[in-house]
Amino acid sequence: MADYDVLCIGNAIVDIIAQCDDAFLETNGIIKGAMNLIDARRAELLYSRMGPAVEASGGSAGNTAAGVASFGGRAAYFGKVSKDHLGGIFTHDIHAQGVAFSTRPLEGEPPTARSMIFVTPDGERSMNTYLGACVELGPEDVEPEKARAAQVTYFEGYLWDPPRAKEAIRQTAMLAHEAGREVAMTLSDPFCVDRYRDEFLHLMRSGTVDIVFANAHEMQSLYQTTSFDAALAQIRRDCRLAAVTRSEKGSIIVRGDETVPIEPLPIRELVDTTGAGDLYAAGFLHGYTQGLSLGACGDLGSLAAGLVIQQVGPRPRQNLRHEAERAGLL
Amino acid sequence: MADYDVLCIGNAIVDIIAQCDDAFLETNGIIKGAMNLIDARRAELLYSRMGPAVEASGGSAGNTAAGVASFGGRAAYFGKVSKDHLGGIFTHDIHAQGVAFSTRPLEGEPPTARSMIFVTPDGERSMNTYLGACVELGPEDVEPEKARAAQVTYFEGYLWDPPRAKEAIRQTAMLAHEAGREVAMTLSDPFCVDRYRDEFLHLMRSGTVDIVFANAHEMQSLYQTTSFDAALAQIRRDCRLAAVTRSEKGSIIVRGDETVPIEPLPIRELVDTTGAGDLYAAGFLHGYTQGLSLGACGDLGSLAAGLVIQQVGPRPRQNLRHEAERAGLL
Repeated sequence: MADYDVLCIGNAIVDIIAQCDDAFLETNGIIKGAMNLIDARRAELLYSRMGPAVEASGGSAGNTAAGVASFGGRAAYFGKVSKDHLGGIFTHDIHAQGVAFSTRPLEGEPPTARSMIFVTPDGERSMNTYLGACVELGPEDVEPEKARAAQVTYFEGYLWDPPRAKEAIRQTAMLAHEAGREVAMTLSDPFCVDRYRDEFLHLMRSGTVDIVFANAHEMQSLYQTTSFDAALAQIRRDCRLAAVTRSEKGSIIVRGDETVPIEPLPIRELVDTTGAGDLYAAGFLHGYTQGLSLGACGDLGSLAAGLVIQQVGPRPRQNLRHEAERAGLL
Repeated sequence: MADYDVLCIGNAIVDIIAQCDDAFLETNGIIKGAMNLIDARRAELLYSRMGPAVEASGGSAGNTAAGVASFGGRAAYFGKVSKDHLGGIFTHDIHAQGVAFSTRPLEGEPPTARSMIFVTPDGERSMNTYLGACVELGPEDVEPEKARAAQVTYFEGYLWDPPRAKEAIRQTAMLAHEAGREVAMTLSDPFCVDRYRDEFLHLMRSGTVDIVFANAHEMQSLYQTTSFDAALAQIRRDCRLAAVTRSEKGSIIVRGDETVPIEPLPIRELVDTTGAGDLYAAGFLHGYTQGLSLGACGDLGSLAAGLVIQQVGPRPRQNLRHEAERAGLL
């Protein structure tokens, strides 16, 4: 038995979340629905123009780790914060959720990463991420015993943005595979896919990655096609298992010849889509590491994603195990 | 015409909000539903035991100022933060809401105040406040032109906890009355009332305060009675105008012989009562400074309070002017 169900690796980020209208995005040159990378100066400028905000620990894979732990799974996390106030918040929150996290924090500059997230009235989030301390994550931050001990290691495509994180990923994946574990990734963002298409395809085709999470836009960006079906046919060949989310249409899981369509959770009010993909992955991976069927994995993903988009912020306030039990899924 | 509709004065606090169960409150000696004052050591201990949290600017009168501005009113604020990360968050948020705020921040220690707020499954919030920089608020922070220029000056009973804020209040009230303005206060908390009962009664009976906001518990604590009606009869005599909130029973406004009962907003899901009283006061004071009837003032209060308790955090994410227009109240 593995010591951990899921080891997540990602950019350790605190979210700063505010509402805005579509005109604000346009005026400020923010690509809607995307993760926009920004430098420290632009971070200051955007914050000065941002409305009243709330702060919450985020980071794609951090949200997934928190979700797995909330389902009752054993989660671990690698990610780099600085020894500052936001780093303290990030560390408190992930520990308080029960996630094993002991990446050595950076002393001094740059500060802990933050993402200014603007939520439009349609619930869509547009992210503006200053990577800060995340640029220092490297192979020296890999904890080999955790890499070997986790049933699935899951990482963000976003980790191709900082300079040395990809070396940490390759090393972790090697350790995991040597220990007979599996490796999963999320494609993260259509523009991120565009930046690193060849490398992501190589990760999949070389078997460095076994399981891929993507939304339809990311998958179609990967294969540079407007056809969902054509892209799905390709991703089916390029990895052992893929889960593709489609917003209000639910998701589709493919594994070899198998195709499992998953219904979305019925939504009362769409508030903020931040964390939807991260929590889908959390539910799916929790089910997967508990040995559930693909359909049951997808239903847990739909549940967690459906809950997180009905609130502000990237991690659901509910206990996901209780919610899953109440829904008859666990 | 006044330059400001409402000047709010209070403890400038950032909220740290997490869920917990009732057993947690008991184990940690936290009085449920109350504002518990804590020192720096206990703040550290409670944070280490706190679940995953979100951060949001708070402070009772700060929430009211933000609410007035969200309704489209002209709001100003006096309150003391330190020049640190949380102070930056507080300042950004209140400025971004359009509130005039220029109290000189403290250089160095103590840090900006924070309140750890534990929300139980019934939606009740239990606050644990470390006053930090708030203890330095004093008469030197009174900006006389704002005190004279605001139609209503509104302050928290909580300001009797730090040592010198009450001097700032007395001075502001004098300036306001000299300029022909009105002064309002909230009784804040039943235990706060218990700490300063005689002083609060003196503020009312001496005419330092014209308008009083209270919930039923606070009003009954003020008059040390279990009878709502007996307390209401007394508060009616002790101030010119009082608005008493009663949770799901709505509120009652009394002025001389007038009695105006107000319905609550129908609630879909009670999430977190933090800010309910503050936002009731915001709605009421916005209506009052626009010259609306007492009934209309109360309805605006019910609207804002009803919205804030259906989300996590003390300031509604909605634009309150739009919500009030949609509800036919403005």
